[in-house]
Amino acid sequence: MSPTTERAAAQRTSPVQRLEFARDGGYDVVLRRGLLEGNASLITEAIGSRRVAIITTPTVARYYGERLHRLLVAKDVSCSLTVLALQERTKTLASVAEVAARTRAAGIGRRDVLIALGGGVATDVVSVAGSLYRRGVAVIRLPTSLIGQVDAGIGLKSAVNANGVKSALGGFQPPEVVLSDPDWLCSLPPRALRAGMAEILKVALVLDVRLFDDLRAFGPSLIASRFAGPEDVIDAVLARSIELMLSELQSNPFEEDLARVVDFGHTFSPLLETASDHRFNHGEAVAIDIALSARIAARLGLLASCELDAILGLLRDLGLPATAPLVTAELLAHAADDAVAHRGGDLNLVLPSGIGASVFVRARAELTDALLRDVVAETVPSRSG
Amino acid sequence: MSPTTERAAAQRTSPVQRLEFARDGGYDVVLRRGLLEGNASLITEAIGSRRVAIITTPTVARYYGERLHRLLVAKDVSCSLTVLALQERTKTLASVAEVAARTRAAGIGRRDVLIALGGGVATDVVSVAGSLYRRGVAVIRLPTSLIGQVDAGIGLKSAVNANGVKSALGGFQPPEVVLSDPDWLCSLPPRALRAGMAEILKVALVLDVRLFDDLRAFGPSLIASRFAGPEDVIDAVLARSIELMLSELQSNPFEEDLARVVDFGHTFSPLLETASDHRFNHGEAVAIDIALSARIAARLGLLASCELDAILGLLRDLGLPATAPLVTAELLAHAADDAVAHRGGDLNLVLPSGIGASVFVRARAELTDALLRDVVAETVPSRSG
Repeated sequence: MSPTTERAAAQRTSPVQRLEFARDGGYDVVLRRGLLEGNASLITEAIGSRRVAIITTPTVARYYGERLHRLLVAKDVSCSLTVLALQERTKTLASVAEVAARTRAAGIGRRDVLIALGGGVATDVVSVAGSLYRRGVAVIRLPTSLIGQVDAGIGLKSAVNANGVKSALGGFQPPEVVLSDPDWLCSLPPRALRAGMAEILKVALVLDVRLFDDLRAFGPSLIASRFAGPEDVIDAVLARSIELMLSELQSNPFEEDLARVVDFGHTFSPLLETASDHRFNHGEAVAIDIALSARIAARLGLLASCELDAILGLLRDLGLPATAPLVTAELLAHAADDAVAHRGGDLNLVLPSGIGASVFVRARAELTDALLRDVVAETVPSRSG
Repeated sequence: MSPTTERAAAQRTSPVQRLEFARDGGYDVVLRRGLLEGNASLITEAIGSRRVAIITTPTVARYYGERLHRLLVAKDVSCSLTVLALQERTKTLASVAEVAARTRAAGIGRRDVLIALGGGVATDVVSVAGSLYRRGVAVIRLPTSLIGQVDAGIGLKSAVNANGVKSALGGFQPPEVVLSDPDWLCSLPPRALRAGMAEILKVALVLDVRLFDDLRAFGPSLIASRFAGPEDVIDAVLARSIELMLSELQSNPFEEDLARVVDFGHTFSPLLETASDHRFNHGEAVAIDIALSARIAARLGLLASCELDAILGLLRDLGLPATAPLVTAELLAHAADDAVAHRGGDLNLVLPSGIGASVFVRARAELTDALLRDVVAETVPSRSG
């Protein structure tokens, strides 16, 4: 053995070496009116001296994107505006690649920032793209839809569809900050407002009896007035929804526990959305899931019939569907099997056990075919409605 | 105001709410011979009772993939084998989607595991796919190439190419464990071994004078013998390379500091790889980058001519290129501009300042066109070689 070989042997390190890592962070979810007017400094301060690329969709661009772009340019922010037709059908890896290509063309460096301006699809696609662009670039989310402001735009998770499966590809991509302006909701069509109400109902029904009462008292008129007011009620409902959601996420941000109360309404809905070829939007599919889950809960003796009636009545008053012809026991069984794979082997179906409370059905076996058939049969008369 | 509205106002939460998160982890990088023979328990113990999908490439499947699959099936592991033609040209989001689709078809749930068996391209594509599949599924990496065992397969980062840009899309996707068998290197063609040597030279030249000496003493014969032995030298070189790499990553796992010593050889090389349409493989492009960086260092008075000669001589002895006709001052300037965008506004060019030491050139302006022209001109005579 040469001296060098001896030295090599002497300096030989262990055949097992280890790398340890830790990463922490946090973000604010800010609800403030006048973000494109008197309170625009919230946006410019979040950007700082960085270059920014605004990514938005055609309709949102006309309503707010162009205004935001002008506003930032006027404040000497180095800023570009990219408009892409992002929608549920194009919530794909191809759109992620397109956003990344536009981001590159806009000259965004690793320490610059993207602004995702739009509904849940836009914030999802831009968040996934941002997490992959140059090993991850900061994303400021400006959710303009109700569903975005209370749910899709405020969490750590974002995903795109793939292989006909809803949100098949995605991960945890926390935003740098979320800035939401309730005034933006006034430009939403009623159907989008109703979809957002389904997500508010989701957290209210299993977490907060007061918010459930508020939804009954104000929900239908808020939709009818297209969120024109009263502002204190709107802001309180939004803030409480956000608080409930963040509180659940805070205790389990990376879903190490796969039994999540906020998965209520999200066991059957992913397959309902894709099986309907997105004829149902996300909120409508969640509404149907909520109704089905409530019916299952009632059959299991978890929910009194007056509670079930109140839930179904509220869905109706909010203009949300409670079932659909495509809902069959087979489809629900298939969705439950998908959920088991997604939730690490457990079903973890969230069922309301009263208003403002919930339990988990952990084992797939508890959701028998007979139970699913009974629940579906029960919905049939309402199909004519 | 109704009683409910009053209550809503009273329960109104702050318009600014915050989510905090922290995530930590770690992984072992294990170097052990006989992983598909006497030491197979290292693999089966890493899998545990989970379902596993092995993803590999055609050649690796023939050499090791089918054997691993049989071995796991014989141990009653629920296991599938997916063979995909993953190579530098198909290191794309489309391949990521394909891996995800195959993973879904294999019935992999969120708490199951993928095995990435192959070279750097395979571990990169599977790591990105794993990070997106069902919000992230565990990936065990079994790197079979030299470049994989000392570099591409052992870090937190993985990426795919997009829009003609090398590793344009990716992030930090730590593996669950890395298991490497040096015996696997014997099946590699010499060109792949030389490419791996370029990455070992990368860490040796800027971090460890002893490893540099060992490369000079043993590198050419290791390649000539196709890593047939001596085992103690091979294992020592591999272990030391891994140790140097992990030590650098340990201090800066998520690249919050964008001045990274391990970016040595990786400033000009990404563009060289894509500009050559991948005629140069990654290691060859890194070798050219190392030679150019050494020449720049010599011109800046950081490196003595004998040191430069030793570096260029070692590259030659390892059968690695030091330049190419496509290397022009314009191309290098373009690559430097790309690096600035990728490194948050600073060039952070790593230059050797002696053997086993380095300095950063932080400002892009220091890399003048005249300097680049001089360096390129200096390489011209060697082009005939």
